[in-house]
Amino acid sequence: MLVNESAALVARIDGELSRATFVDPHSHIDPLAPSARSLADILGYHYYTELVHSAGVPRADIEGPGLDEETRVARIVAGLSCLTNTIQHAWLMEIARDLFGFHGDALAPSNWPDLAERVRERTADPRWTASVLAKSGIEAVFLTNDFDDPLEGFDTTLWVPCLRVDELVFHTGKPGVLERLARTSGIEAGDVSGLERSVEAVADRFVGRGARAAAISLPPDFRPRAVERSDATRAFASVRREGLAAPAADRTTLSTHLFWTVAGICQQRRLPFDLMIGVRRGVYPGGVHQGQDLLDGRLSLADYAPLFNAFPGVRFPVSVLSRPLNHELVSFAWIFPNVLPFGHWWYANTPSTIQADLEQRIEAVPRTKLLGYYSDMYKAEFGYPKFAMYRRTLCRVLADRFVVERGWTEEQAVDLGLDLLVRNPRRVFYSSDPS
Amino acid sequence: MLVNESAALVARIDGELSRATFVDPHSHIDPLAPSARSLADILGYHYYTELVHSAGVPRADIEGPGLDEETRVARIVAGLSCLTNTIQHAWLMEIARDLFGFHGDALAPSNWPDLAERVRERTADPRWTASVLAKSGIEAVFLTNDFDDPLEGFDTTLWVPCLRVDELVFHTGKPGVLERLARTSGIEAGDVSGLERSVEAVADRFVGRGARAAAISLPPDFRPRAVERSDATRAFASVRREGLAAPAADRTTLSTHLFWTVAGICQQRRLPFDLMIGVRRGVYPGGVHQGQDLLDGRLSLADYAPLFNAFPGVRFPVSVLSRPLNHELVSFAWIFPNVLPFGHWWYANTPSTIQADLEQRIEAVPRTKLLGYYSDMYKAEFGYPKFAMYRRTLCRVLADRFVVERGWTEEQAVDLGLDLLVRNPRRVFYSSDPS
Amino acid sequence: MLVNESAALVARIDGELSRATFVDPHSHIDPLAPSARSLADILGYHYYTELVHSAGVPRADIEGPGLDEETRVARIVAGLSCLTNTIQHAWLMEIARDLFGFHGDALAPSNWPDLAERVRERTADPRWTASVLAKSGIEAVFLTNDFDDPLEGFDTTLWVPCLRVDELVFHTGKPGVLERLARTSGIEAGDVSGLERSVEAVADRFVGRGARAAAISLPPDFRPRAVERSDATRAFASVRREGLAAPAADRTTLSTHLFWTVAGICQQRRLPFDLMIGVRRGVYPGGVHQGQDLLDGRLSLADYAPLFNAFPGVRFPVSVLSRPLNHELVSFAWIFPNVLPFGHWWYANTPSTIQADLEQRIEAVPRTKLLGYYSDMYKAEFGYPKFAMYRRTLCRVLADRFVVERGWTEEQAVDLGLDLLVRNPRRVFYSSDPS
Repeated sequence: MLVNESAALVARIDGELSRATFVDPHSHIDPLAPSARSLADILGYHYYTELVHSAGVPRADIEGPGLDEETRVARIVAGLSCLTNTIQHAWLMEIARDLFGFHGDALAPSNWPDLAERVRERTADPRWTASVLAKSGIEAVFLTNDFDDPLEGFDTTLWVPCLRVDELVFHTGKPGVLERLARTSGIEAGDVSGLERSVEAVADRFVGRGARAAAISLPPDFRPRAVERSDATRAFASVRREGLAAPAADRTTLSTHLFWTVAGICQQRRLPFDLMIGVRRGVYPGGVHQGQDLLDGRLSLADYAPLFNAFPGVRFPVSVLSRPLNHELVSFAWIFPNVLPFGHWWYANTPSTIQADLEQRIEAVPRTKLLGYYSDMYKAEFGYPKFAMYRRTLCRVLADRFVVERGWTEEQAVDLGLDLLVRNPRRVFYSSDPS
Repeated sequence: MLVNESAALVARIDGELSRATFVDPHSHIDPLAPSARSLADILGYHYYTELVHSAGVPRADIEGPGLDEETRVARIVAGLSCLTNTIQHAWLMEIARDLFGFHGDALAPSNWPDLAERVRERTADPRWTASVLAKSGIEAVFLTNDFDDPLEGFDTTLWVPCLRVDELVFHTGKPGVLERLARTSGIEAGDVSGLERSVEAVADRFVGRGARAAAISLPPDFRPRAVERSDATRAFASVRREGLAAPAADRTTLSTHLFWTVAGICQQRRLPFDLMIGVRRGVYPGGVHQGQDLLDGRLSLADYAPLFNAFPGVRFPVSVLSRPLNHELVSFAWIFPNVLPFGHWWYANTPSTIQADLEQRIEAVPRTKLLGYYSDMYKAEFGYPKFAMYRRTLCRVLADRFVVERGWTEEQAVDLGLDLLVRNPRRVFYSSDPS
Repeated sequence: MLVNESAALVARIDGELSRATFVDPHSHIDPLAPSARSLADILGYHYYTELVHSAGVPRADIEGPGLDEETRVARIVAGLSCLTNTIQHAWLMEIARDLFGFHGDALAPSNWPDLAERVRERTADPRWTASVLAKSGIEAVFLTNDFDDPLEGFDTTLWVPCLRVDELVFHTGKPGVLERLARTSGIEAGDVSGLERSVEAVADRFVGRGARAAAISLPPDFRPRAVERSDATRAFASVRREGLAAPAADRTTLSTHLFWTVAGICQQRRLPFDLMIGVRRGVYPGGVHQGQDLLDGRLSLADYAPLFNAFPGVRFPVSVLSRPLNHELVSFAWIFPNVLPFGHWWYANTPSTIQADLEQRIEAVPRTKLLGYYSDMYKAEFGYPKFAMYRRTLCRVLADRFVVERGWTEEQAVDLGLDLLVRNPRRVFYSSDPS
């Protein structure tokens, strides 16, 4: 086969997959303000602020209370010239070009006002968000909702609620959390049983509002296990009494118990529980907003075996932040029926890493278990370049590893791609059948 | 060079390597029943049962006492549609097509009885095993023999004994093990010296029956070291007295001492000692037979430096289960004369992982030390697709990295491939010269 | 695009990059004997001695006091046939062919005297070193200087001093080190303050002689942190009194304090501080000179966050020895302004590893922060094949990932390559601007 035949093959598969529509099973969209209203909303994405800061722009120059939007945009644009190589810059220019009709390879002091004007004009159209989603092939977007999010004022079949439990599980002792829990659940958590009932009430409200998953991000040193009831009781009393001043051991015991409790609730309610494993928060406190967290690969999914064994009825879509752990993720998903590789998360969401991780997954994990991708986006515009990047990588793997190396037909390859991109997220998150 | 020239180059190298015959230096073949007699023998390979279980088929549906063979096969076949993407499915279809003349891309309720009939017919021929090995290019197959295996009733030049010491080293306290050791060795192990002599007697019997290696699989937290004699004495007394009820520290001390003892025996007898590092047993107790073990990458080969330093006369073919450890394996084999990278093991035995691992090894480890591949198979049919998969990957690496990038001739590339596939396993396992 | 077009594209980019001259920001060159004088100087590079030893040649055969040069060369040459596959062998033949006009694919007993004669002849020319550097494109070479190196007798703009602090930081207790420090600094370190002042004096002397960086290699278990003054005081008193017999905890405390002190000195003097992380020394004490150290990947760059946070004004060029840590290096450089990925070090300096690591870096780290490569060489001849290997890999990544996949022009790709190879090392090491 000639290389231009090979490029044509990839293009044909991509053409087929591009016609599909799919759900985006994880984002940080605010459904009341789902898309950008200004260039600042786009350039304010943490990828741009953290990367221009990393390239030398002081934090105070691009964020903080006294900064007007125009100055901020101009300073971020000035920093972009240092990151034209990054895939995040490629996302930006793909948005500018394909969604806003901007011409040019890069933003510069001379041309960014033109893009800013285009963003203002187009996004003012009330049909804008719908048109962006349609152009991206996205038919529904999963959210990340705090436990006391009212979940009101939006179409929950388009913006699908997802119960994020980080705060409940890890920050129970923070001022206000227990009060908010009591208010939203209508249950005063006087003891561990009350606490569990209030979390159940939260979950039931979410399910009633169409939630399709619970989700949590986990630090590298977290170790799931069932906690003795008496230990949980003592730990909760300590945290309830002393808040953040409670001994670290008590706070850890309570977090461990609450995590286990949420897993049990998910099992009863047939709710998938997304695990996003390996983030270390606040590693760089001098960083920009959302640009302070990093990863630490010193863990093994073997630490999670007690969880996977205890809750066979819960499907666990699992994302790992550290690339070397992809091999464990593949192997655990190969053996455990309830472990499903889930997208390509954050620091692992760049093309060469996606390609290598995907190649490992797609040759060893049942095709029905591969949850291809999610956008993780804050503004709807980013679904477009992110899914396009994923799809291009997926098509290259399908072309090289299946059509060329294994002699598959193009139709077979497209069909496999549709499992990852379309069918599996729909079946896993929309069916209550655990298998 | 055009791509079709490139594909032709790979094909030419593969054509040359396909003519070679070689030894398969690690398998789990039963020499008294080396090949399949039925489709159930093929589909019963743990890769298929564990993957269809992982895809949602309950364990009780595919294994257990009350299950007739036809039902079991039908249920496994039904699950296969979820894993047509996996390389294990590709092995299966390559066997069906090339060894049994089956037509079709996949097994289905409608066509598996045809394959079952073909398997029954062809395998009934007494020349079947020989013909499969011949078609695969395999001239001898190493076994995995328990310490008290009688090693009788088969040609030990074709089915080469290999002393597996996991049970001796790690399960000395299990009921019956010491009794079996006494019986097979003729030595009652009343103390540590007796224990050592009995292990020596076992090794001598194996060597006398043509054994070419000792082998062991090791958990991620194993730490080889020489044990003080008094500690070994105390630990053995404890395990001998209390069996599995002995304190964990005593059992660990005894295991550590026995492992070290085996290494010393290998040094005296010039026997290679295969180390298969990083498996965690029984992680998923609800899994199917042989589908319960997983990996844990939290170790370093630096933990094994005391062993490599203490036994310079032992060649250690080393397999690592966790892909990130391949870089350590490459580096340790680059420095230690007695460390040899050994095949691509279990969860690391899929094409994209083999390719990446092989590329790292073949550019940095002396060519005489690269032990290319072993089948790890339970039935002789699997040597055919597994070695073919390895050979295709090897040929791609030879073509891209040596002929295209480094300007080697095809003859030079084929010659390097023969080192990995043919010459090194022969020299390392059949010569008593440690270098 | 046809493959020959693809190869032509790579060649055109390589042609452009090959015309550039650049600094080599890390080597072990002796500026008073910068290049080889004999074939023994070339074959004595630890890569050849350690690899032929790894392949089976006893250490005593190739190093030791009673060995004449010709015997030694003949024995190393005899071992080379076992490593013709390695990239180190490719370096050797590229030197032989391109720098010395040697013909042939490999060295053999019959032809090495010819190469030896060529080396003697050509290197006798006083313009030899300059011509080698010119042919390699190298305009300046950074050294690795002990703290009491006189830094005299050479052009420090060509051979750029670099303060290596391993000995000061980790071996303060070794006999003679404190005496040498007192002598070179003119300050008797009677207490911690005196010790700090003497290190400052060393740094000032280096800066005065044109030093462009401090550098250190670090074991996997090192944990940077600020040490309490009273602890540092006690630890220094202990080490000063007892030397290597001081308790390990005191030696570790002093090392930790000295490391932190050097970082502070670098911040005040705007000196980059190269961190080379993850080497375990003396793992194989039976190995050849410089062939005894290995790696251990059980660390996280999260361990270094206290350092990166405490010294925002220091640029830290960071090399990691363990390949799985490249993803952490990419992520930390993406977030921390003062962390810069630095070259491809030692066991990670082979083509397939460089390619995979580079692809991860170049798609996620600002282009202004990527410090492409350094030679790590002991003799100037090795800059030629090492930088050529790096440049070929870089060009392949630029061609595939940027021109083909992202639609960049060739000019844009070349420009990005020049950032890594030329501009960034110049700006980072020659500017005192920390951003």
